[in-house]
Amino acid sequence: MLTIDAVTWLDSGDAVRIVDQTLLPERMEYRELRTLEDVCDAITRLAVRGAPAIGVAGAMGLVVVLQPHASDSREALLRRAEAAAERIASTRPTAVNLPRALHRVLRRLRETAGTAGDALAAIRDEATRIRDEDRAMCQRIGEHALPLLPEHARVLTHCNAGALATTGIGTALAPIYLAAQRGRVVEVLVGETRPLLQGSRLTAWELSRAGVPVTVLADGTAPSLMREGRVDLCIVGADRIAANGDAANKIGTYGIAVAARYHGIPFYVAAPSSTLDATVDSGRDIRIEQRPREEIATGLGRTTVPEGVPVENPAFDITPAELITAIITESGIHWPPYDFPTG
Amino acid sequence: MLTIDAVTWLDSGDAVRIVDQTLLPERMEYRELRTLEDVCDAITRLAVRGAPAIGVAGAMGLVVVLQPHASDSREALLRRAEAAAERIASTRPTAVNLPRALHRVLRRLRETAGTAGDALAAIRDEATRIRDEDRAMCQRIGEHALPLLPEHARVLTHCNAGALATTGIGTALAPIYLAAQRGRVVEVLVGETRPLLQGSRLTAWELSRAGVPVTVLADGTAPSLMREGRVDLCIVGADRIAANGDAANKIGTYGIAVAARYHGIPFYVAAPSSTLDATVDSGRDIRIEQRPREEIATGLGRTTVPEGVPVENPAFDITPAELITAIITESGIHWPPYDFPTG
Repeated sequence: MLTIDAVTWLDSGDAVRIVDQTLLPERMEYRELRTLEDVCDAITRLAVRGAPAIGVAGAMGLVVVLQPHASDSREALLRRAEAAAERIASTRPTAVNLPRALHRVLRRLRETAGTAGDALAAIRDEATRIRDEDRAMCQRIGEHALPLLPEHARVLTHCNAGALATTGIGTALAPIYLAAQRGRVVEVLVGETRPLLQGSRLTAWELSRAGVPVTVLADGTAPSLMREGRVDLCIVGADRIAANGDAANKIGTYGIAVAARYHGIPFYVAAPSSTLDATVDSGRDIRIEQRPREEIATGLGRTTVPEGVPVENPAFDITPAELITAIITESGIHWPPYDFPTG
Repeated sequence: MLTIDAVTWLDSGDAVRIVDQTLLPERMEYRELRTLEDVCDAITRLAVRGAPAIGVAGAMGLVVVLQPHASDSREALLRRAEAAAERIASTRPTAVNLPRALHRVLRRLRETAGTAGDALAAIRDEATRIRDEDRAMCQRIGEHALPLLPEHARVLTHCNAGALATTGIGTALAPIYLAAQRGRVVEVLVGETRPLLQGSRLTAWELSRAGVPVTVLADGTAPSLMREGRVDLCIVGADRIAANGDAANKIGTYGIAVAARYHGIPFYVAAPSSTLDATVDSGRDIRIEQRPREEIATGLGRTTVPEGVPVENPAFDITPAELITAIITESGIHWPPYDFPTG
């Protein structure tokens, strides 16, 4: 199985190497992140993206940024780390994985006795652990979700919740990779996912690279394929899941869930339990990031929206729990009513 | 009201002037069609588009092509006219308005006594009449549909069924123009309409030019705006309507209709009665045109689908009658159950 390594250490932890996802599918290029500027810029530009991958890249990035400061005092290192973590966390407001991963690194830093050098070694270990857990999480989500796929499953997904969005085999795509790995026939349909085209640029790229049959659609096409009986189930990822099971995911997800319900097609959300936000009771309390007008108006180098015409460009929408057939995390399949612990 | 004249006479009928819609919204340029080549090329390239506008442009184009041949014999002129009409009709074989309009011009030519000059004057009159009828049809659709708009209506539309698709104030956009003209507050939301972006390139352009507030969305955004209570009603055009009321329209329309039903929002179809196809019992019998992969894969000059990955690119989908609140034609508002005459 040829899934891609979206985020890795370089030079024993002096840099983070990411696939620059803005260039796909035209070019596959790596970027090396060494400075705070590099890390924030990569996350902001969506060079690295996907809630789990951002969490790992943020944690590893924080370690890399602190690496040159082994001669700081413990106090100075901690202050520097807190400032850097705050800066990194501010790049993307919706996904909960990023602040959570940064918080783990900071806590480990605070709890490690000894010199700044000792602390740096400890947080490198912590960031590696976060990555390893992420990888294992993907595998377990795949194992849990695999029985939900019928023979010759025709799976509709949206955006990219695959290897490029994690450091493993993805979340929504994990059962698809496992099915293919075990010789089962599985086909994927994916909307191109305007405005940033993660479906056509990324999901189609990583699946076809791994030999999994995939077909790309304009986003408005999925409901009519459901009507024609060409979709067996839908699986998408999530950026944040409220305690009641409401899930924030890429804009367009909600319409797919509504259409799936109308056609009696199962609609699954696959995400690490780190996506569950116990501090948020329902989707109403999830803050939705508004992205720049340019992504829609001039996204591909040509002006496609007249000057002066406003654009509504939310990055995410909320799919209410009542439209979600089940939520699959690394701990298993959760059926409604969802009773995730509240905080 | 500053609606655009998509198709007009130039120089008292020696040329047809069209807005080149392939350049919008970046540039507003007219094209003057004088030769058979000009006319066929404009329709083929979609420089002029929208079923009603194509019919008018074809009829007027046929007249212009024959104009220099006033000294032909009647017989020679008729043979020349039939050959030219056949050539023009072949540019868009699926549109019913085009052959229908060309047929009217040919019949008038055959029925006119006197010299070739007399016949040319008569068919110029016929083509003008076709255009005037189209313009009046738009106005009547607008008048019938206007009472369906509440005060401060927030209207979702899709693709372009406006002035650019007709020679009047459009079909789906007609009540919106009339409401604005009468000082009523009306706001339009439109999905960009992938892959060819008629929503963002054309609908947003003509509405903003006329001073009607319009906001552009990625196509997947509409359902979440419905959920947020930001859409009062949907109005779309149609390319073909079956006897039972099933309507073919731009891909993405069906998903909007499903979401509108889920949220209890009215969903209207506005179209000339010439769109009603009495020979087709239901949507199942409407053939859906498949468009080239390139429109999705490389549509704006950048490759956005990996090489070798297939694309599903139907131009239209079918919205079943049971999801359509009412169908508005120039003859009035038709409520379900639809009982259009069958042939």
